[in-house]
Amino acid sequence: MRRVYNFSAGPAVLPEEVLQEAADEMLDYRGSGMSVMEMSHRGEIFDGIIKEAEQDLRDLMHIPDNYKVLFLQGGASQQFAMIPMNLMKNKVADYIVTGQWAKKAYQEAQKYGKANKIASSEDKTFSYIPDCSDLPVSEDADYVYICENNTIYGTKFKELPNTKGKTLVADVSSCFLSEPVDVTKYGIIYGGVQKNIGPAGMVIVIIREDLITEDVLPGTPTMLTYKTHADNNSLYNTPNSYCIYICGKVFKWLKKMGGLEAMKERNEKKAAILYDFLDNSRLFHGTVEKKDRSLMNVPFVTGNKELDAKFVKEAKAAGLENLKGHRSVGGMRASIYNAMPLEGVEALVAFMKKFEEENL
Amino acid sequence: MRRVYNFSAGPAVLPEEVLQEAADEMLDYRGSGMSVMEMSHRGEIFDGIIKEAEQDLRDLMHIPDNYKVLFLQGGASQQFAMIPMNLMKNKVADYIVTGQWAKKAYQEAQKYGKANKIASSEDKTFSYIPDCSDLPVSEDADYVYICENNTIYGTKFKELPNTKGKTLVADVSSCFLSEPVDVTKYGIIYGGVQKNIGPAGMVIVIIREDLITEDVLPGTPTMLTYKTHADNNSLYNTPNSYCIYICGKVFKWLKKMGGLEAMKERNEKKAAILYDFLDNSRLFHGTVEKKDRSLMNVPFVTGNKELDAKFVKEAKAAGLENLKGHRSVGGMRASIYNAMPLEGVEALVAFMKKFEEENL
Ligand SMILES: Cc1ncc(COP(=O)(O)O)c(C=O)c1O
Ligand SMILES: Cc1ncc(COP(=O)(O)O)c(C=O)c1O
Ligand SMILES: [Mg+2]
Ligand SMILES: [Mg+2]
Ligand SMILES: [Mg+2]
Ligand SMILES: [Mg+2]
Repeated sequence: MRRVYNFSAGPAVLPEEVLQEAADEMLDYRGSGMSVMEMSHRGEIFDGIIKEAEQDLRDLMHIPDNYKVLFLQGGASQQFAMIPMNLMKNKVADYIVTGQWAKKAYQEAQKYGKANKIASSEDKTFSYIPDCSDLPVSEDADYVYICENNTIYGTKFKELPNTKGKTLVADVSSCFLSEPVDVTKYGIIYGGVQKNIGPAGMVIVIIREDLITEDVLPGTPTMLTYKTHADNNSLYNTPNSYCIYICGKVFKWLKKMGGLEAMKERNEKKAAILYDFLDNSRLFHGTVEKKDRSLMNVPFVTGNKELDAKFVKEAKAAGLENLKGHRSVGGMRASIYNAMPLEGVEALVAFMKKFEEENL
Repeated sequence: MRRVYNFSAGPAVLPEEVLQEAADEMLDYRGSGMSVMEMSHRGEIFDGIIKEAEQDLRDLMHIPDNYKVLFLQGGASQQFAMIPMNLMKNKVADYIVTGQWAKKAYQEAQKYGKANKIASSEDKTFSYIPDCSDLPVSEDADYVYICENNTIYGTKFKELPNTKGKTLVADVSSCFLSEPVDVTKYGIIYGGVQKNIGPAGMVIVIIREDLITEDVLPGTPTMLTYKTHADNNSLYNTPNSYCIYICGKVFKWLKKMGGLEAMKERNEKKAAILYDFLDNSRLFHGTVEKKDRSLMNVPFVTGNKELDAKFVKEAKAAGLENLKGHRSVGGMRASIYNAMPLEGVEALVAFMKKFEEENL
């Protein structure tokens, strides 16, 4: 068996022991005689799986009782519509645009009401997080929206924006469970699981109960109404049950690793190795303002496109996979999610050193 | 390792060799050093997986070039909204209501325009398929909708309705790939894969190209617009990539088994064993009109609720799982999808015989 260091931005590396367990249980989940893939989502065994997954997530994030946890299909992209359809009672929302995903969410919201771009970092290719301490938040805004960690550009909100009392909605797809979080500061925290948690095909939505209402925009599909799923504990229709099962295993793994405090420490250590190298390298450099650097996604460049391409190719040959930057920005990007071991980052830096020596 | 005979209506039994292959490839897909769960959906390897899956499905169903194949999230339930949002140009559609799923689709469509119930079998608990040779199809209907195989009630359209020239839209969730189909007779064929094809979390939509337009109802989310996904070959956003991979393996298995002609023969043989027994049993009987019997879902009862419960319990103890009927109808239901081996049906009938002897 071969295993590479996989720096993909998502779908992304998963803990090896989770994969091993899934392989072992594939034909017979704990003596049931069935794969989890084959099980009725209304059966007793799956009921245990989904409830345990939810409880473990609640434990990890200290999710208060007045928040629901929803396991939904459609990806993060579907939330771009679902959020305004469910939350835009006044048909006004404020968006802070710090990257492509925030921009897409902002554009989608324009279909449903007045979406205001109250801040943006597009002027400098989204390489920083704007000062959000005193933004012109709209009087009648139904919510203020952020993308907390910008997967493509490698920036992260180190401080939440001052929403002046308005509900905060955050896309945390690429920083989910990477560090402790104060859930009470948000109305909705959501993210696709395919980066830091599990296989693609599911989004987890953590939503404060008062935001779950029947009073949605006219024409909102039943399936795009949070209440539908909240009332049925994510079993209104058939969920992505195998994904819930794998995510559940990752939650157990995170608990065993020491929870989100421990993950934060580990992630800071990993990121420091890479950023320190970038800051001292004469060939490579990071593209993001230091204060706003993400612990999860680290974009970097040599400044020479051919050299970038050569690097990605040679790294791949050395077992360092998926280092190419997003197709919209080029260069390189190393995504170093929870499941990326320290040794993976060390191997990457060692390879970069060698490449620098050979190519400078 | 234990394996039971699993009669679940969905998620449901999968071919054992598919599960075995998935287990073997879990940590290292063919020397890539990654699980398919961990792979970028924009990478070369996954590109091969999704293209091969689509081509194999096209081969199996003889899908003409002027139809697109879409791999979407949200389940069949999300299609209940997506169909009217995309197809209701005149805001009129005709629904044939033959079960709970058709009824839900019909109810959802009422949000978006005039949905007419042009036929129904609700008068006799959906135990038959109405005569659809000369229905009052609306002059300006954008489409006529059916649920071709009714999972809960065990009925199947043996002949397609006469739509009088209107576009036919069919939910084939529980009969997908169970027999050959003439795709050209439909505008849309769609189904959740979690019954006859793969793990839950995906719907396959086979749609004639002229039905894919930008002219959708106002407020239709980008993610609920067929064109979004058609233009991006199902990669507008991250798809349920692991599910696509497993479905691809099932397509290969179906080809190896001899394709849909061979599956039909096999399914007819399996169903005959069960229906013949039911017709001759003094304890058990089927609940569906003979001419409309499904090859996939076989509901039956003893006529005594306690005896039904006893049967389900004892069958479970004997390794015959998930025989309880749908919570809305009670009794028993044996789903005998493609992956249920002949031996499974034989074992069920043998157990029913024994139970009859002991309880009559
Ligand atoms: C921050 C963020 N939001 C949203 C998305 C879109 O997610 P999905 O592909 O599940 O729709 C991504 C995907 O990369 C992302 O990184
Ligand atoms: C015929 C049919 N249509 C639709 C559905 C709903 O599918 P999903 O749970 O994927 O939304 C089902 C589920 O059992 C079904 O049998
Ligand atoms: Mg971004
Ligand atoms: Mg440098
Ligand atoms: Mg039905
Ligand atoms: Mg009988």
